[in-house]
Amino acid sequence: MKDSVLILSGGMDSVTMLYEYRDAIALAVSFNYGGNHNKKEIHFAKLHCERLKIKHIVIDLAFMKTYFKSSLLEGGDKIPEGNYDDENMLSTVVPFRNGIMLSIAAGLAESNGLKKIMMANHFGDHAIYPDCRKSFVNAFNQAVSEGTYEHIELVAPYTNITKSDIARKGVVLGIDYTETWSCYKGGKIHCGCCGTCRERKEALKAAGIIDKTLYEQ
Amino acid sequence: MKDSVLILSGGMDSVTMLYEYRDAIALAVSFNYGGNHNKKEIHFAKLHCERLKIKHIVIDLAFMKTYFKSSLLEGGDKIPEGNYDDENMLSTVVPFRNGIMLSIAAGLAESNGLKKIMMANHFGDHAIYPDCRKSFVNAFNQAVSEGTYEHIELVAPYTNITKSDIARKGVVLGIDYTETWSCYKGGKIHCGCCGTCRERKEALKAAGIIDKTLYEQ
Repeated sequence: MKDSVLILSGGMDSVTMLYEYRDAIALAVSFNYGGNHNKKEIHFAKLHCERLKIKHIVIDLAFMKTYFKSSLLEGGDKIPEGNYDDENMLSTVVPFRNGIMLSIAAGLAESNGLKKIMMANHFGDHAIYPDCRKSFVNAFNQAVSEGTYEHIELVAPYTNITKSDIARKGVVLGIDYTETWSCYKGGKIHCGCCGTCRERKEALKAAGIIDKTLYEQ
Repeated sequence: MKDSVLILSGGMDSVTMLYEYRDAIALAVSFNYGGNHNKKEIHFAKLHCERLKIKHIVIDLAFMKTYFKSSLLEGGDKIPEGNYDDENMLSTVVPFRNGIMLSIAAGLAESNGLKKIMMANHFGDHAIYPDCRKSFVNAFNQAVSEGTYEHIELVAPYTNITKSDIARKGVVLGIDYTETWSCYKGGKIHCGCCGTCRERKEALKAAGIIDKTLYEQ
């Protein structure tokens, strides 16, 4: 039954979820909060939805660039290099971004008679992003159920698996990951050094995928 | 200590909270989701913040008008008349609006080193708005605490009191309620017949305030 709204960034994780749950997803929503990284992602989000004939919308959150503090919203040179779980990646956190995206997804679900909202947070996000943790997912699920007439449910099936596990699903689903975007710097090609590029490389390698991504380094 | 972000519509309830908690509020945020009702409210939100020298910002949520279902977002003739708790007022519900506004407030709080988010839901909202109920407030408080580094807290001090109780606070605080907006129709003056106008009249009467609001009827 097509009863779900998916938050679709256009990165590896949410694109994999789009393919895995294509029969359940009635609507995919991407969020535009400014920056080149975001534009690159949305391009791929759109491409996959067109291919799978799933309705896709883009919602503008321009206010984040004006009022929120995050190096991700500035992009380019401000993005730190190094490992994904390093302390310096903290600057890329967009405060309570998942809460905001999930709340809007819940409003969209209720406006469209849908019952579930989905997001593709995974276990590797756990270390630095509080709004990716199981404790957050459980509490938000309760809040969205209490706050909607139809007791909308939050579904986050990748909460306890790693990005490598997700890439392994992608192999089975036949996903070409060169048609996804990870790099936080948002240049012409992936930089290869920022936390998300490193995480991408490791996951593809662990899943036994030949990495055809073009990297600067 | 000024450590709170208040969601300020410009209606009676949130304006009363602005005055009552003026020493705790570092930032007030209004949301623009389209419609004349909303414009009228924001005018008063701005006026009171200027008077109290509290920083005020307006965040645009234009996507609601495009993608959400609610007679409030259409305004004018679409707004039902009758009592606030009538079944027909259901059409004015904006799905999960409080969840969306609270999530953005939480992101603003974390971006600005603030610890609390406040909203002025009250007991009278309870009947028709699920995202005004105590069960929602408690669950969302847990979600926002789990999903932020500083364990931001949701404070909703009017959850268990009525709009008449709020108006009684207003008397003590010296608030002139003609400098607030209620009517969902958003005409030149309050219509006097829609659910919010009726609720306003009753609250002012119950608090013993001479109602100087100009009503069409």
